[in-house]
Order: sequence, then structure tokens, then C-alpha cells
Amino acid sequence: MDLKHIKKRILSVRSRLERVSANCLIITKPANVTYTTGFTGSSGWAVITPRTVYLLTDSRYTEQARKQCSNCVVVDVPDSMAATAGRLINKLKSTQTAAVENSASLAVFNALKKNVKCRLKAVSDIVEPSRSIKDADEISKIRRASSIAAAALKKSECYIKPGVTENELAGIIDLQIRKLSAVISFDTIVAFGAGTSQPHHQPGKRKLKSDDTILIDFGARYKNYCCDITRCFVVGRATALYKKVYNVVRASQTAALKMIKPGAGICEVDLAARKIIAEYDLPVYGHSTGHGLGLEVHEQPTISANSKEKFQIGQVVTIEPGVYIAGKLGVRIEDDILVTADGCEILTSKCPKIKIV
Amino acid sequence: MDLKHIKKRILSVRSRLERVSANCLIITKPANVTYTTGFTGSSGWAVITPRTVYLLTDSRYTEQARKQCSNCVVVDVPDSMAATAGRLINKLKSTQTAAVENSASLAVFNALKKNVKCRLKAVSDIVEPSRSIKDADEISKIRRASSIAAAALKKSECYIKPGVTENELAGIIDLQIRKLSAVISFDTIVAFGAGTSQPHHQPGKRKLKSDDTILIDFGARYKNYCCDITRCFVVGRATALYKKVYNVVRASQTAALKMIKPGAGICEVDLAARKIIAEYDLPVYGHSTGHGLGLEVHEQPTISANSKEKFQIGQVVTIEPGVYIAGKLGVRIEDDILVTADGCEILTSKCPKIKIV
Repeated sequence: MDLKHIKKRILSVRSRLERVSANCLIITKPANVTYTTGFTGSSGWAVITPRTVYLLTDSRYTEQARKQCSNCVVVDVPDSMAATAGRLINKLKSTQTAAVENSASLAVFNALKKNVKCRLKAVSDIVEPSRSIKDADEISKIRRASSIAAAALKKSECYIKPGVTENELAGIIDLQIRKLSAVISFDTIVAFGAGTSQPHHQPGKRKLKSDDTILIDFGARYKNYCCDITRCFVVGRATALYKKVYNVVRASQTAALKMIKPGAGICEVDLAARKIIAEYDLPVYGHSTGHGLGLEVHEQPTISANSKEKFQIGQVVTIEPGVYIAGKLGVRIEDDILVTADGCEILTSKCPKIKIV
Repeated sequence: MDLKHIKKRILSVRSRLERVSANCLIITKPANVTYTTGFTGSSGWAVITPRTVYLLTDSRYTEQARKQCSNCVVVDVPDSMAATAGRLINKLKSTQTAAVENSASLAVFNALKKNVKCRLKAVSDIVEPSRSIKDADEISKIRRASSIAAAALKKSECYIKPGVTENELAGIIDLQIRKLSAVISFDTIVAFGAGTSQPHHQPGKRKLKSDDTILIDFGARYKNYCCDITRCFVVGRATALYKKVYNVVRASQTAALKMIKPGAGICEVDLAARKIIAEYDLPVYGHSTGHGLGLEVHEQPTISANSKEKFQIGQVVTIEPGVYIAGKLGVRIEDDILVTADGCEILTSKCPKIKIV
């Protein structure tokens, strides 16, 4: 990772930390650790002080950490993260209040309380606000993840034929993503027929039949950055109901996309997408209209009716309205977009949608 | 899932709950939700009261929850889990203290505090102690997961040839697991050559060469139950150092396995495995000697020098000593065992180890 970006991130973390009257931050959330240090192992904490960034990890990862974290002092954890963080922070005489991310568990917070002598304070949104605005390096990684996902789905198309199971097709898409030197960004969802009506269906043994409907919700993670795409298909002929639903969901997504630009109210975009579906007397989806994505597949902002925020340039979010009729059918169309100076750019446009007319 | 097992689990949860002077438990940890309700969606809480088990989930999962949770009252979450749990618990007049698992985040605990009128208490080990002892149904699922993993590795063998990348081989193993109607239990680790010296290496673009060493750490999840296996191989001829290391790691594992039986001290088994490695002047691994596994790939008990516990009949754990020489080589051998009346049974014996002499 580019050291220039990391330094900028650390500066903004330190400035937000000052605003909550703390001068030390214990980062336990993996994506925030990666964002501030470059470390990608599954077990590591960062401790940010006014002068230094420490990366705490155990012997499984110290070799990797020394390679990845050129901005950090790597601290070996011989016992527990909390004990090691305690020893480190207790030595820093300037620390009066150490902040802990409120994504940490009660168990972690209590272990820290036992080991850290200074005051501990639960905080939120110290690292996340920076993460929600992507820099050029991050955007290019998400763009690449999107291209890989599109190519993987294209290469998987020849396996989409009667007889393949949901689980097998999910595995085929995953393998195609790996062949393109990426990994999946979350467990691939493949649903056939009535299974599509469960928005987060778990792929099973169900075999694809002729005249079946398919929903694929999948993504690639390239250099730790995610994309998240949903596409729906029909094998053979679509029913009149499916055609209607599909076209209404597309219209709903289009309505939302048209409204996105810096300064546009997030809740208004959410409402615009839902309004189209309601107008056609179809059931309005219960999930959010979308979410930010980057190092995590779900991050800030959430595109929902409760949001009081406005879109900002550089945000990358999904727009994914859907219609679900229990036991019958489900259609969701999901693209990832970048908020640009005068609107938005669809990053997942290489992944074609079918046309149902 | 068998209702008889679920009922027994709920009884033991209620009895442990009484001991911490609470009569309501809010379960937020996914594996504990699955264990007590059968629900396998990725977003759900359970609330256990003296009379009822509630399963809280949003519209994406309510259809699935009604199918899976025949012992539960399914509660739809229109806003947030904490708000819904609050409305539910505030209606139950008998609840004076609601317990919250300490695996919950500070954010979740604070949200609950805002919404729940009665006293809240952070607790641990209410559900986990039951989970550590597997019933016959669970053992048969882990056994099946182990068979599937072994078969998947066998089917992947023909792809282990020079030119394949670490990432591609990981994808091939995953696909074979899916073809056998299971999924992976954690991100498959495939490491070639020097990469094997990082215990939790991330598979990359590195291609397999002739005379390379390979480490594969992988597992299948069958009906939500995990197995976890590590195997090491050599393409071509092993060096004298590799042969030595491999045989010492096998001897270390054998020493540990010989000692396991109900009543044996967990720390003693850990020490026995390490002692062999130290005797041969090889670096002793920094990770634990093993861990319980079941609904999670890491659960109670941890096989470490700090453990004060003794093995109990019905526990399923990994035994996985290793030797890592940074930048040079790594060997870890990992099997899953069931603690039986008079010793232990290796559940992963269908997955052959190579012989290096």
C-alpha cells in the first residue's frame, strides 16, 4: 500500500481522536487495522499514539506484519492482545485516555480494563468516516475487483445449465474469481426458482431446471477491496409476472441512480427506489437500498430511509432494490457506483444485465 | 435439527442462567443462535426466557427462520435488533435482569441499554460449555464434514502439479467440497515453498514448482459443522531438513494423541507436543496445540499451556503442532479427534498423510 495514503489516514484519525479528548486509539476492527497499517492478517490490533503506529500480532503473523506494515512498530503478542496492549500503553507516559472502538466486544473491553492503567473510553466513527471517502488507489482496486467479478461471471456462464446445483455454481464462480487472482468478497449466493425469494438464500443441493429463474449475488475482493453485484437470469422463457417484476426493479434502480450526486439526500434516493416498486403494487423490499463498500463489503454509508446524510464525492455504494414474493420469485439488481463531481459512475457496468421485454 | 437436542440445550442454558441470577438471555453470537434455535441465517438474535425462545430477524430471513426454528417464536425486526429486543423484553413482566453475552460489541450493549428497561448484565460461558461437549448428532456431522474434506482433497490431487497457483488450488479444493454438498469451514490456506513458514499464509499468485513443498490447511462445513485439517506434501524430493522437520512434527502429534483421554490435563497434552519439538532443537510453534471445533472452527477448549481444564468425553478438538523456519519451510500436521471413554478417535483419518522416510 502507498505510504502517502496511510500517512494521510493516520493524520485524520489523530485529528478525530483529539475531538473526543483521547490521544491513543486501540483499533481492534480488522478492516480499520488494515486501513491504518496495511496489515491483512486475521489477527492484529493497531495502537495509534501521537507519535507512533503500533501493530500487535502473534507469532503466526509477525513475519507477514514486518513485510506489510512499513509505517508501524510491530509488537509480538506472546500472551493476549489485551495484555500486550496494556504493557505497551502503560509505558507511554503521555497517555491519559485511551479510546477503544465500540465494535470491540464487552469481553475485549473488560480485558483491556484489567490491563490498561489509564482511562478507557468507547468511541465510534474515528476511522470509518475517512474510509467512506475513497482515494484514487482504493477506487482503482474496487474497479479492478468489479472487472474481475464480471469476467468470472462471464466465464461461469457455460456452466449455467440444467443439472448444476446452486452450491456447485457458487463454487464455479468462486474458482473463476481465484483464477483471476482475486478471492470472493463474501459467501456467494446462488438461488434457483423459489429460493430466489429469500434475499440471503444459502446455496444448496437444488438443481437448475429448464424454465428456472436464477439469482446470483457475488463479489470479488482484489487487494482487500470488495465489489458486490447481483444479477438475475431466466433459463428458457420468463413468466409474465417475472417480466413485470424484473422491469420494475430495473426502473427502481434507474430512478435511484439518476438522483445520486454530491449533496443529494441519501434518504431521498432510498425513497425514490421504493416509490417505483410501490407504484406498481409490488411488495417493497425490507432491506436497505444499498451500502458503502471498500475494505468491507458492508460499510458506511447505509442507503436507507433513516439516513440524515448526504452523498459525498468519492463514496462508493451499492444500489440494490429488489422484489420478493415468498415461495415464488425474487429479483434483485445490484450495482456498485462511485459518487462523482456531477453524478455517479457505475463501476460494475462490465457485468451485463439481461433484457426482459 | 432434532428438537430433542435443542430442548436439552435450552434446559442447560436456563440452568446456567439461573446461576448468574438472570432469567433472560440475549444471544447475539451467531453460532450460539444456531445452537439454541437451529437458525442459520447471518443476521439473527435469540432471546431465551423461562418459558419461550424467541428468534429475532429481519425480513431477509423471516421466511427461512419460520422453516428452521420450530422451537421458537419468530419476531420480525423492522428497525434494529436492539430496539426489537427492547420492545420484547419490556413486555415480559417477570424479567428483572437480562443477560447479554460478552461477545457482543460495546455498540450493541449500549444500544440495548437505551432500549431495555430492566438491568443488563454481561455474561460469558452460558451457551459455550454445552457446545464443547458434542452429542451424537453433532459428532456424526463433524465426521461427515471430515469425510467430505478428505474426499475433496483426494479429488484435488490431480491438480497439484507445477504451474498451478496457490489461489487456484485453494479454489479447486473449495469447488470439490461444494460438489460434495458442503461448503468450506474457513478460508482455505494453500502455501508453496517459503510461504509455508507463515502459519496463516494467504494464498497468492505463487506457482507450484518442481521440488516444492506444500501446506494445505482446509476444512469442510457440513450442516453447519466444521472440520479442520492440515496436510503437508512435497513435489519431487524432500530435503534432509524437511524430512527431519516432518518426522518430528508427526512424532509431536503422536505424543499428544497418546495422552488424550477423559480426565487428562489439557496443558499436559500441550506440553507433551512441544517437548518433542524442543528435544530436536527445532523452534517451538507460537500458536496453540489445538482447539475445539463444531459450529465454529475455533471454539472451546483451547489446547494450550495456560489451560487449567481436563479433557471430557464428547469433546472434539484439533491437534496441530508445527515447525516454522522463517522464509524457509513450515510443516503443520492437524487432525480432528473425538475424546472417547478410554482415549480418542481420529475423525480425520480418511485424509492420508504422506510418509517421509
